[in-house]
Amino acid sequence: MDKTVAFFGLGHMGAPMSFNLVKAGFRVKGFDPVADLLDHACSQGVERCVSPQEAVKDAEFVISMLPHDTAVESLYIDEERLLDEIEKTSLIIECSTISATSSKRLISAANDKGLQAIEAPVSGGVTGAAAGTLSFMCGGDDSSVKRARVILQHMGTNIFYAGTAGAGQTAKICNNMLLAVHMIGTAEALQLGVDNGLDPKVLTEIISKSSGSNWSLQNYNPYPGVMENVPASKHYAGGFMVKLMSKDLGLAQQAANASRSYTPLGSLARNLYGLHSLAGNEELDFSSIQQLFQESC
Amino acid sequence: MDKTVAFFGLGHMGAPMSFNLVKAGFRVKGFDPVADLLDHACSQGVERCVSPQEAVKDAEFVISMLPHDTAVESLYIDEERLLDEIEKTSLIIECSTISATSSKRLISAANDKGLQAIEAPVSGGVTGAAAGTLSFMCGGDDSSVKRARVILQHMGTNIFYAGTAGAGQTAKICNNMLLAVHMIGTAEALQLGVDNGLDPKVLTEIISKSSGSNWSLQNYNPYPGVMENVPASKHYAGGFMVKLMSKDLGLAQQAANASRSYTPLGSLARNLYGLHSLAGNEELDFSSIQQLFQESC
Amino acid sequence: MDKTVAFFGLGHMGAPMSFNLVKAGFRVKGFDPVADLLDHACSQGVERCVSPQEAVKDAEFVISMLPHDTAVESLYIDEERLLDEIEKTSLIIECSTISATSSKRLISAANDKGLQAIEAPVSGGVTGAAAGTLSFMCGGDDSSVKRARVILQHMGTNIFYAGTAGAGQTAKICNNMLLAVHMIGTAEALQLGVDNGLDPKVLTEIISKSSGSNWSLQNYNPYPGVMENVPASKHYAGGFMVKLMSKDLGLAQQAANASRSYTPLGSLARNLYGLHSLAGNEELDFSSIQQLFQESC
Amino acid sequence: MDKTVAFFGLGHMGAPMSFNLVKAGFRVKGFDPVADLLDHACSQGVERCVSPQEAVKDAEFVISMLPHDTAVESLYIDEERLLDEIEKTSLIIECSTISATSSKRLISAANDKGLQAIEAPVSGGVTGAAAGTLSFMCGGDDSSVKRARVILQHMGTNIFYAGTAGAGQTAKICNNMLLAVHMIGTAEALQLGVDNGLDPKVLTEIISKSSGSNWSLQNYNPYPGVMENVPASKHYAGGFMVKLMSKDLGLAQQAANASRSYTPLGSLARNLYGLHSLAGNEELDFSSIQQLFQESC
Repeated sequence: MDKTVAFFGLGHMGAPMSFNLVKAGFRVKGFDPVADLLDHACSQGVERCVSPQEAVKDAEFVISMLPHDTAVESLYIDEERLLDEIEKTSLIIECSTISATSSKRLISAANDKGLQAIEAPVSGGVTGAAAGTLSFMCGGDDSSVKRARVILQHMGTNIFYAGTAGAGQTAKICNNMLLAVHMIGTAEALQLGVDNGLDPKVLTEIISKSSGSNWSLQNYNPYPGVMENVPASKHYAGGFMVKLMSKDLGLAQQAANASRSYTPLGSLARNLYGLHSLAGNEELDFSSIQQLFQESC
Repeated sequence: MDKTVAFFGLGHMGAPMSFNLVKAGFRVKGFDPVADLLDHACSQGVERCVSPQEAVKDAEFVISMLPHDTAVESLYIDEERLLDEIEKTSLIIECSTISATSSKRLISAANDKGLQAIEAPVSGGVTGAAAGTLSFMCGGDDSSVKRARVILQHMGTNIFYAGTAGAGQTAKICNNMLLAVHMIGTAEALQLGVDNGLDPKVLTEIISKSSGSNWSLQNYNPYPGVMENVPASKHYAGGFMVKLMSKDLGLAQQAANASRSYTPLGSLARNLYGLHSLAGNEELDFSSIQQLFQESC
Repeated sequence: MDKTVAFFGLGHMGAPMSFNLVKAGFRVKGFDPVADLLDHACSQGVERCVSPQEAVKDAEFVISMLPHDTAVESLYIDEERLLDEIEKTSLIIECSTISATSSKRLISAANDKGLQAIEAPVSGGVTGAAAGTLSFMCGGDDSSVKRARVILQHMGTNIFYAGTAGAGQTAKICNNMLLAVHMIGTAEALQLGVDNGLDPKVLTEIISKSSGSNWSLQNYNPYPGVMENVPASKHYAGGFMVKLMSKDLGLAQQAANASRSYTPLGSLARNLYGLHSLAGNEELDFSSIQQLFQESC
Repeated sequence: MDKTVAFFGLGHMGAPMSFNLVKAGFRVKGFDPVADLLDHACSQGVERCVSPQEAVKDAEFVISMLPHDTAVESLYIDEERLLDEIEKTSLIIECSTISATSSKRLISAANDKGLQAIEAPVSGGVTGAAAGTLSFMCGGDDSSVKRARVILQHMGTNIFYAGTAGAGQTAKICNNMLLAVHMIGTAEALQLGVDNGLDPKVLTEIISKSSGSNWSLQNYNPYPGVMENVPASKHYAGGFMVKLMSKDLGLAQQAANASRSYTPLGSLARNLYGLHSLAGNEELDFSSIQQLFQESC
């Protein structure tokens, strides 16, 4: 079973991740309930499985990349009950962005059955997935995370150890909440400058070298024309969609609610992305929040 | 008059700025209505003047570093009417952080009298002022800003040209508004992580290498103990005081109001810093906003 | 079993509610795991039961007034499994303020076992509970709510029918979210007026007769001295505590998160009450939010 | 000159106000720089004046209803210098909604020239202006406000005395800020309810009789179909336009900035109305903020 991987979820993220494993010489046994996604993956060297149960047979690693809590819990625990099928020597690497609560439930249930399991949500988007430059924010026991490095290194460049079960998911939503906050803040600051006569390129140049500097401004500038090759200069196509950012901000607020933490800017960010989404922009890149601050034509 | 400078405002910022000019070989004629400040400056090589009018005599450069619009307008236009006394060949370099409206009024009034004038608000704080590593965000006509470089280079390392009169002030408040937003956002994200069991150092490490990264997190971390030598690890003493950040956020909102720009996070940042200030923290460093999100003892 | 009631939860709200039933001639069989609360209730005519199971025997109505989801689900479903003990002819009236999700789970589980059950969260506070003037916001099937009126009328004056299971809880949190919003808004407006020289009584008088009018301003004015006999004029003692408002705002945000609804003011209200709570005010009346906008001594 | 009135500003509000004075038997000498507005007013009994100076001759009362600070200051002080033309026995009643700063400047300048002047901004909208049921929020000296009642009573039903110069303007913006807050809060609460399955009429009914009750919910419900004869049931046509609410919220923030008052909900309300305006809704009634929380088609 050496170098055999079961891979669940072959969508925008999962597909390119699995292809990188194929290239690295792994035998990748794939499953996805959506026929088109499975077909596409199999055309790139993934081995077709007709059921989740078939996929996990002889798999050293079980990797999943799914859209939400329910999908994950359904696969492993509630419906497909995969925890009963997975080989005892396998390592489960759950890469979906889901609630820490749900992630802890999975890891705990796996451990109860004598299985190793970690969470490893990613950042880096579709581009990072294709290039094999994702960041993984891992949570679970230390030795399992160490074991996972062998395979994660073929899909990403940064493999962080955040702490015990749930810590990886928490790190991910803290990062993305902060990203949303400085993306919106950057859009506001650039618009305020432009409305007062500044050139957005000049303003970006100045702030980049000053204390207002941040990743959104410098690497993913939301003002059209300031940077080449970012979504803002391509009508906000591609990238990290508004609806995905909204989902992550919802997870952050869910966590804040449960731990009685207060995040006034993070809460407002969820609401602003939500309103932007309701206005029909959920498929645009998340830097399109710039448009919220501009007169619509 | 070569290398002679009139310097107005010898407080926390103005004093060390003037000392750097003394060290660079300038004759610095100083004035401040507060006797103690003037005494202190004169003990470091600044030449004592008994009136603003005396100070500007033979000065090639007139530099001011004052607390607000009224102080600036009073000095040059309304009370002391210094614009009538300044040598026609002088260059006025107004370094205070004031409203763009007030700054434009000064530069326009100076130009009307045949005087060269620019605005050059700074960032870098007391530390930068002492070390001569300030950033200047200049606004005014291009040639005057070029002429100013000769002297600004002895007080700072970055000399930005933002655009015509008012643009320097606007760049400054856009930067500081964005700084406030990511400082608060960073404090929220770190607290949310800690409340859910993460180590703030580990979380800082992860986000620093991810898309949530920003100047506050990386250079001025607000969580006590994460970084050495920042205010957070010195009981939030020193640094850039809450009341000064509050002032800048007020200027940003004043500008947004006038240009009908909308800055929901920037507005909320002004309010949160204001509430923090009302609670008795106005003399603390602005990274103390972390405390707003923690249970008070 | 006619006119026999099982009553669970004999705290600040439950105790006076149960006393009103005693006064109305009901046999009230009480249970609370906190001995002091049970003792106090029994001193006022409630019949002591040693277990939940004993309480429900022969009870026509089963009423519960508990602090959170877990307490309710534990009592009826997960731990005490009371649904298996309750008489088939009984009506369960669940008066706790809990999530609609949890409430639906209870009602559905009860119905599955052939039991009638409704939710009936209350508003009106401790004062209303004692005076028998509570409002009940009922959810569940129409005929069960009608049946409940017979007993609810002895504890409250308004018995609203909000809709099917969950609707009562939703109505409650919508009301309380809106209450929090206009309480904070009222505090802000009064403070803005006072800071600009107005008398808070005069301002209250004017707004009360104008379009800014609302329940907080008119019935529960948060500015000290404007009204007699409200918490603001009694150092914010008593009333509806900050921590209870915070709990309800958390439930509202949990619902908004689940239904992808956006409530920017409601979210900010949750955060402001949370920050006020962290600062040590959780036991004060919720109108004490006025203090957040005033300089602390 | 008894019962002779000079009236400046004959737009949406000023025209119907002036007509009520004509009906009450006053001689109304009107002026407006917009020819169409003046023509329309003259067709209803207002006497045409070709200049502001002509209008104030023999006028016992001078009334102005203008769009902003500049218009008011230009008329009385800076351009037309009307204060030099107005009869010494006249009473100036300035009804525009402007900043308290500007209003104080006018009243003080008038007093310096021996003239009586008050501010009397209104609430009640176009409907109230036509029906003669406006509310006036008066500021200035007490005796002048008393004298004004003689004429104000023909245009409105509530004549409030808020305090000295500026107090009327402050009361107006405090009221309107609070109105905006509970309008948005009401829209959020109704949408949250509807998204969770409630009928907006039932929810309105319940909250109206509970602690969440407020003027917006009860008199001007923003959810289409809940009330007849409100803008929400007429595609948000007519009423109090988004751009006018935005203007008032800007004045409130300007005042808060100047007095260092903090109004987190009021600030957010300004931003939300501003974003709604940018999205192309500035001519709709302000209750159309409901649409911000609904999916656009």
